[in-house]
Amino acid sequence: MLQSKLFYKTTKNKTAGVDSISHDFLTRAGYIDQLMAGVYSFLPLGFSVLKNIEKIIRKNMEEIGGQELLLPVLQPKENWVKTDRINIEKEIIFLLKGNGYKEYVLGPTHEEVVTPLAKRVIFSYRDLPFYVFQIQDKLRDELRPKSGLLRVREFMMKDLYSFHANQTDLDNYYEVVAKAYGKIFKKCGIGSVTYRTLASGGSFSKYSDEFQTITGAGEDLIYICKKCGIGINKEIKNENLKCPKCNNSEFEEKKAVEVGNIFKMGTRFSLPFDLKFTDRDGHDKLVLMGCYGIGLGRLMGAIVESSYDQKGIIWPKSVAPFLVHLLQFDNTPKVKKAAQKLYKDCQKEDITILYDDRENKTAGDKFNDADLIGIPYRIVISEKTLKENSVEIKERSKEKAKLVKITQLQKFFKNVKKN
Amino acid sequence: MLQSKLFYKTTKNKTAGVDSISHDFLTRAGYIDQLMAGVYSFLPLGFSVLKNIEKIIRKNMEEIGGQELLLPVLQPKENWVKTDRINIEKEIIFLLKGNGYKEYVLGPTHEEVVTPLAKRVIFSYRDLPFYVFQIQDKLRDELRPKSGLLRVREFMMKDLYSFHANQTDLDNYYEVVAKAYGKIFKKCGIGSVTYRTLASGGSFSKYSDEFQTITGAGEDLIYICKKCGIGINKEIKNENLKCPKCNNSEFEEKKAVEVGNIFKMGTRFSLPFDLKFTDRDGHDKLVLMGCYGIGLGRLMGAIVESSYDQKGIIWPKSVAPFLVHLLQFDNTPKVKKAAQKLYKDCQKEDITILYDDRENKTAGDKFNDADLIGIPYRIVISEKTLKENSVEIKERSKEKAKLVKITQLQKFFKNVKKN
Repeated sequence: MLQSKLFYKTTKNKTAGVDSISHDFLTRAGYIDQLMAGVYSFLPLGFSVLKNIEKIIRKNMEEIGGQELLLPVLQPKENWVKTDRINIEKEIIFLLKGNGYKEYVLGPTHEEVVTPLAKRVIFSYRDLPFYVFQIQDKLRDELRPKSGLLRVREFMMKDLYSFHANQTDLDNYYEVVAKAYGKIFKKCGIGSVTYRTLASGGSFSKYSDEFQTITGAGEDLIYICKKCGIGINKEIKNENLKCPKCNNSEFEEKKAVEVGNIFKMGTRFSLPFDLKFTDRDGHDKLVLMGCYGIGLGRLMGAIVESSYDQKGIIWPKSVAPFLVHLLQFDNTPKVKKAAQKLYKDCQKEDITILYDDRENKTAGDKFNDADLIGIPYRIVISEKTLKENSVEIKERSKEKAKLVKITQLQKFFKNVKKN
Repeated sequence: MLQSKLFYKTTKNKTAGVDSISHDFLTRAGYIDQLMAGVYSFLPLGFSVLKNIEKIIRKNMEEIGGQELLLPVLQPKENWVKTDRINIEKEIIFLLKGNGYKEYVLGPTHEEVVTPLAKRVIFSYRDLPFYVFQIQDKLRDELRPKSGLLRVREFMMKDLYSFHANQTDLDNYYEVVAKAYGKIFKKCGIGSVTYRTLASGGSFSKYSDEFQTITGAGEDLIYICKKCGIGINKEIKNENLKCPKCNNSEFEEKKAVEVGNIFKMGTRFSLPFDLKFTDRDGHDKLVLMGCYGIGLGRLMGAIVESSYDQKGIIWPKSVAPFLVHLLQFDNTPKVKKAAQKLYKDCQKEDITILYDDRENKTAGDKFNDADLIGIPYRIVISEKTLKENSVEIKERSKEKAKLVKITQLQKFFKNVKKN
């Protein structure tokens, strides 16, 4: 992509009204644009990161048998009356009247759609288990949206739903999902600061699990057990003085943001929708369900909160909008020719590249923009580097740049492509 | 994909309350599920077709310089007041009140978001032209949803917006988009029945263009000029007795469904949002805009309406949920082994395959399901075919099946992969 054509403008000034680093950097670098409180547009750079996160999540969901589908934003109010969540979730539900006085709920989650849908395919134990997921726009009328993408009113969410004939099967799959979540967060570069954290399971299971990423911008408090390393959330901490896993009572308190959660719903939704199956013994039984969520935008925000310096974002390769940022200085024919060749070579190698071809910007401006945007590899081509038949390569996460002979670039390409 | 695991159930009976062939087949074959009037879930098969259509559209939008972004469903009501569309589009707009009495419009289209967004990046003529698009969920409170995916209240839409410094540039790009649309519809298999159709341009240009696909299920009437082959819509027909392109007055009347439209908006939206740029001559001028839409679900419906027989859907390869449908008969160890090998070989060749491994279904059931689902190539493996060291291959669009030696399958694979 030519940077001169990219739909964005970086800004030097701190964004007004921001209350987190990710909000500030993502806005200033042109990843997102706030339309109103808690509602954001994803600009091309931000959309690209979102797509990379989506790809990681999709791969891991498919690997554990998830089948992808797409459920609507518009949901019939009746279904929310049936589960009584019309009252329980009252504060955050968007309710809406359409033509013919039809009442809709804008889906903050999809149990009220997927459960009756499952009724059409589940009859016998032979139809179980199965797992469906979607990556879809959710709406939730947060009272106090804040911190950019960390607490919003509209967001892309991956929601997986599992259906089981018995508790053991649900328990086993729940652990399979937990493991997949671990892989996703690791791949996104926040594995070392993301804790599986015990939370209340409501009335249908003892615990659920949150995945909490440690960050000063987080609104949650979690307690990391000094002995076994798992987290417990505030609710559990207040109930238990000891860690439920190892009986230790020493914890470290940390601020964190919830990037995912997994929940054994049991019969919470199969009961109101009468979702049953005929078991091997000939008896009709209620299906057991699990649900598993990850917010893509919040994950994007959490990645930035975990990886930046004072100049800007430092993207992990796995989700970066481009892998290489090529900066052309001294707009002489010689430099342009070399830069254009490198740009094409990268594309041939299937390495995504943003090429700062802007001729009305100073070297300082280009360096600042590159640091703010945070692409993993920065390459500078200038009269000076060409005198050495070289380019200057710097990793965003490292201090020092190094000169690399143009003839040696194949080795660099290989390195970039490595996972 | 193993069919025994696929999240769907085919039904033999005609769907109740359907008023189009595509609605009936897509429902019975398990592509879509109606949640309520005009609102559908896309099941795994349908989601897969949707993704294939999305890929075709995305490729063609990127080829004409479109940069992808993602705008929100929730839009501030104020912006719709500013353009007065809060009144003009009153009948089909979903209006909504949230916490703090904040009023939202659920976006039926995104001019009210993309125009103010463009203000942040357009300053001078140097910033023009540019093109942004998204593939995103739209909401529109249709008074009479009907014909399955053809007229709905919630739908995936590709909307492209272009921004120009002068009319010539807009005019030129408009034709570039029209050409890309032609390529998209051709690739989707409806090129020969889809007509570029002159429609009213509103108050800002003489004409706009619709892309209309001929089908008995269509709600529009178009008039195809017997001389030059272009279409005009009813509105234009009533105004002109002759074809505006060739002055001919003989037309053929056809029922059709609108699968896309392109529109020169001129200053319709830049005026209320004061979207200006400084031209070469130093003067501030209003930006000229174009907008270009394709509804993905409707396109999916139109493809089915154009390609079926009495047994079911006949998907074009480009959008089919799978390329090969493997049917295993006589569940003997020998047949199973051969089927499983073919299943794996296809996957190795990157050929998408649905493997009907269900052991509780008759050959008749399997044949019926395969015809209904409409995957381009059907392969049968049975004791009988294996006696000849062969499999039976039939294209969904052709009458006759043929025996192919298992040793000759590589040639078949090559053929399947050809575009």
